[in-house]
Amino acid sequence: MPKQVDHHERRETIARALWRVVEQRGVGHLTMREAAKEAGISLGQLQHYFASREAMLSFAMDFASEQASLRVGQGLQELGEGPHPRDVLRVMLTEMLPLHADARATSRMSAAFVLEALHNENFHARTRDGMLQGRAMVEQLVRQAIADGQIGPDRDPVVETDLLLALTGFTTLLELDVVKPRDVLTAVDQHLDRLFGGSDTPAGDRTR
Amino acid sequence: MPKQVDHHERRETIARALWRVVEQRGVGHLTMREAAKEAGISLGQLQHYFASREAMLSFAMDFASEQASLRVGQGLQELGEGPHPRDVLRVMLTEMLPLHADARATSRMSAAFVLEALHNENFHARTRDGMLQGRAMVEQLVRQAIADGQIGPDRDPVVETDLLLALTGFTTLLELDVVKPRDVLTAVDQHLDRLFGGSDTPAGDRTR
Repeated sequence: MPKQVDHHERRETIARALWRVVEQRGVGHLTMREAAKEAGISLGQLQHYFASREAMLSFAMDFASEQASLRVGQGLQELGEGPHPRDVLRVMLTEMLPLHADARATSRMSAAFVLEALHNENFHARTRDGMLQGRAMVEQLVRQAIADGQIGPDRDPVVETDLLLALTGFTTLLELDVVKPRDVLTAVDQHLDRLFGGSDTPAGDRTR
Repeated sequence: MPKQVDHHERRETIARALWRVVEQRGVGHLTMREAAKEAGISLGQLQHYFASREAMLSFAMDFASEQASLRVGQGLQELGEGPHPRDVLRVMLTEMLPLHADARATSRMSAAFVLEALHNENFHARTRDGMLQGRAMVEQLVRQAIADGQIGPDRDPVVETDLLLALTGFTTLLELDVVKPRDVLTAVDQHLDRLFGGSDTPAGDRTR
């Protein structure tokens, strides 16, 4: 196996160890020492792969985003060819919420990263760029659906995009068990049904 | 001044110092040592007021919630007598978002507390109870508005309550400057207008 690949794989293994630290012990434990311990290597070995805590966090966050994108890609593939934009948005939104173990790991890593970003300019710029890219993708979908007559022409694409992104607010409510995953899916479906003009279809009538 | 009052005031002063630590340096700095330093007292003096870090965090969070409730109360008073439920919900929702300095301090304190809560059963139970209480208040308002014909009878009060609470998802988007406060207010108004059946009134036509 070429050395480059091995290096990358080792970094991914460390990133996964870091996710477990965040998930099981919390953001206060995001240190190189704890990551090394969880990955079963020495601090010196870890420093061979990451020169600094910042480099380690950046990589772990990028890797988490990559994995989330793969899950979204997988979900879109399952929709078949020429999927309805409503279903595309649903896949994107539900993968951003901690509705299953993998998404919860990404979600907690992302929450930790946002908190670091409030006090770190480099992280702030990177996190913001990532969110703006996600926002642009959603807005493009909404604009296309308006152009195609799937969303009413009276809807403002910017406002609708913001309201869709705000649905990530379910994250905290799910994490604290204030709402159940099932209730969140019902609410998301209701919001999407109304956006796509099907507000008279009860959410319960949908099979997904 | 009675000693009891002095004790409570001192605790509030420490709590405010703790908020500043969270706001300016981040959740990784939520220690008794840093709180004492920010409050300009010794660690020993701080320990006279709070026996543990957990007791200090709990008090700081309760005090932040209290202050937020006072701001909501103030906002409701400004609406005058018999306010419209739409305006009541707007005051409640916008005070939960980091749209001004005081609300931002509460919001960051709350985010820090939620993260602690994921790995601390006591905090988890308390945070969850607080959120469930807030949820119950919003649901009661929605149910009453449906009963009074201000919200359409086809709306499900549970789903509508969940969708209103999800709007707190604007917190992260605001903190990372992905959306502007003005856009958030437009989106919140749009959501409320639709809920209260005024979807044909552009948000820009409202003076508030």
